[in-house]
Amino acid sequence: MQNISSQRFLQKSIDLRQWTRKMAIVAKTLKFCNYGEPADVLELVQEPLSSPENNQVLVKILAAPINPSDINTIQGKYPVKPKFPAIAGNECVAEIQEVGSCVKNLKKGQRVVPFVMGLGTWSTHAIYDEDQLLPISDKIGLAEAATLTVNPCTAYRMLKDFVEVLPGHCVIQNGANSAAGQAVHQLCKAWGINSVGVVRDRPDIQDLKNYLKKLGATEVLTEEEVRTSKIFKGNQLPRPMLALNCVGGKSATEISRHLDDKGVMVTYGGMAREPISVATAALIFKDISFRGFWIARWTKKNCTAPERFKMFENLLKLIEQKQFVAPVHEMVPLEKYKDATKASFDLKGFAGKKYILCMQ
Amino acid sequence: MQNISSQRFLQKSIDLRQWTRKMAIVAKTLKFCNYGEPADVLELVQEPLSSPENNQVLVKILAAPINPSDINTIQGKYPVKPKFPAIAGNECVAEIQEVGSCVKNLKKGQRVVPFVMGLGTWSTHAIYDEDQLLPISDKIGLAEAATLTVNPCTAYRMLKDFVEVLPGHCVIQNGANSAAGQAVHQLCKAWGINSVGVVRDRPDIQDLKNYLKKLGATEVLTEEEVRTSKIFKGNQLPRPMLALNCVGGKSATEISRHLDDKGVMVTYGGMAREPISVATAALIFKDISFRGFWIARWTKKNCTAPERFKMFENLLKLIEQKQFVAPVHEMVPLEKYKDATKASFDLKGFAGKKYILCMQ
Repeated sequence: MQNISSQRFLQKSIDLRQWTRKMAIVAKTLKFCNYGEPADVLELVQEPLSSPENNQVLVKILAAPINPSDINTIQGKYPVKPKFPAIAGNECVAEIQEVGSCVKNLKKGQRVVPFVMGLGTWSTHAIYDEDQLLPISDKIGLAEAATLTVNPCTAYRMLKDFVEVLPGHCVIQNGANSAAGQAVHQLCKAWGINSVGVVRDRPDIQDLKNYLKKLGATEVLTEEEVRTSKIFKGNQLPRPMLALNCVGGKSATEISRHLDDKGVMVTYGGMAREPISVATAALIFKDISFRGFWIARWTKKNCTAPERFKMFENLLKLIEQKQFVAPVHEMVPLEKYKDATKASFDLKGFAGKKYILCMQ
Repeated sequence: MQNISSQRFLQKSIDLRQWTRKMAIVAKTLKFCNYGEPADVLELVQEPLSSPENNQVLVKILAAPINPSDINTIQGKYPVKPKFPAIAGNECVAEIQEVGSCVKNLKKGQRVVPFVMGLGTWSTHAIYDEDQLLPISDKIGLAEAATLTVNPCTAYRMLKDFVEVLPGHCVIQNGANSAAGQAVHQLCKAWGINSVGVVRDRPDIQDLKNYLKKLGATEVLTEEEVRTSKIFKGNQLPRPMLALNCVGGKSATEISRHLDDKGVMVTYGGMAREPISVATAALIFKDISFRGFWIARWTKKNCTAPERFKMFENLLKLIEQKQFVAPVHEMVPLEKYKDATKASFDLKGFAGKKYILCMQ
């Protein structure tokens, strides 16, 4: 009996040691089990994470932005419906802390960003599969890396995939101060394309205009100014073939009115929460077309396409060369998620800056 | 002096004989010199026509339809601006009456339809260039021939050029009783495609539904019925990839709502004189796109393209095989143009039938 007991005790000790070894870390994670306002439904929970197995890696998340789509997902207003309990967040920059036995292409200390959507990134640590991550150089700044996979990619694809926009051509966009809008102006400048940004009037409008022009905008107009602007009439700029819309309502109508024949308006957001009014004559006689873009769909369809790797290579090169910077942002500690989610998105549309949760 | 005089007299007689020979016919033609309502600005004038020279032919016009675009052109509301004095009308069927000395491919007695836009067809006779005309078999009925080049071609191109619509697929359209709408249902039937037509409610709705179903519509719904219809939800019909809109306003919104993901709405008219309201979510998350089609632009661009000859061949074959008939119509004498233009188009939209001016 004694023997058996001591054997049992030994067995239990070994199990405990194994258990201790497997529990690599205790992560602090923002989870939600119901849809609602982020401040109401998000809970900061502590969870032990096992060591990574096989193709898994354990990462230490350094920073993760709060995007409008993250808020909409938590509110239940987004077409992507997570399984509960769900970890919020889609983007981040992380550092590999431990790798499973079968991991081939990642090693401890390496920086990574998500390669797929829906990983759940608002956490101090996470276990991901190797193929869910893209390694990046640690020369890339934290904010640029944390915000790489959604807005710069949205801007890049909209400029590449809808209509031929060549050096010397022109692009017009509303919500020019949005994260994607700032990316558009920078890419246009890097590629020799004129870009006209439209923003709402505000007390510090001149500062905003200056900032966007410094980023790369050829011209920045308020919603009122674009209505009467002769910028495309006096041969100052060619009429745009591409209009990018993240607002909707009247703002969308105004930018589409400036399009050249056969131009395309691409909608990727609807911050005014108003539908777009499309004139019959623009469709028939000017051959303007109205399309939509959703980076989540594009990514799913083109996850391992050569075009996607080329895009990351180009974007990362521009970032390294200081030709592309993160959107205006503020780093906030993970624990301040309630204030940050409230501030980052409200019914009036985009906040003035992107909030990035800082995990470490 | 006498000699000279008699020479002069002889000369004059020869001129007169030449003049008489050259003036082949006196045409009655509907012309306008100002924009306005057709009944106000159109004038039926008599004009002597010379014999055709070189590549010209003299045609006797048999019938020419009144299309909404003809009315809009006369009103000055169309992007095509004719030179005054202008001859109204764009379509017709005609018979070759006399050919110029260099004409190679047309001969007297042959039936022709316009091969280009803007010929001016509301006339009893006309001089055209050989290459402005397309010869057709005289097995083609007068009404089918007279209305061949605008509406059937519009329907054909919209079904072919925007999104892949295969046998078994489905197309939805409003203004299903328009001339193009009737063409759409017939082509869909010939090609094994399901088609759902939407029309405004009216006292004789069942007769209209029966007529459109006989033409080829799989289902015909009123504007009210399409709002609540479960036709695409019970697997009765696949969700359409293509929606054709000639109405605009709420009607356009309703048909676009039934589109499948990646579907396309093509607008080719705007009878409700209201813009189309496009939901942001449809563009972004359903990847619906909104395009326009204008047969005048397509024809100009593809005038001698093989695809255009193939289209005419296919349409004419369907007509010969009685699988394609002219839209519901009434033949009216040219002299009754005032009543016919008034009746064919009013602010309420399409008339119940197409009026075709009968010249001979």
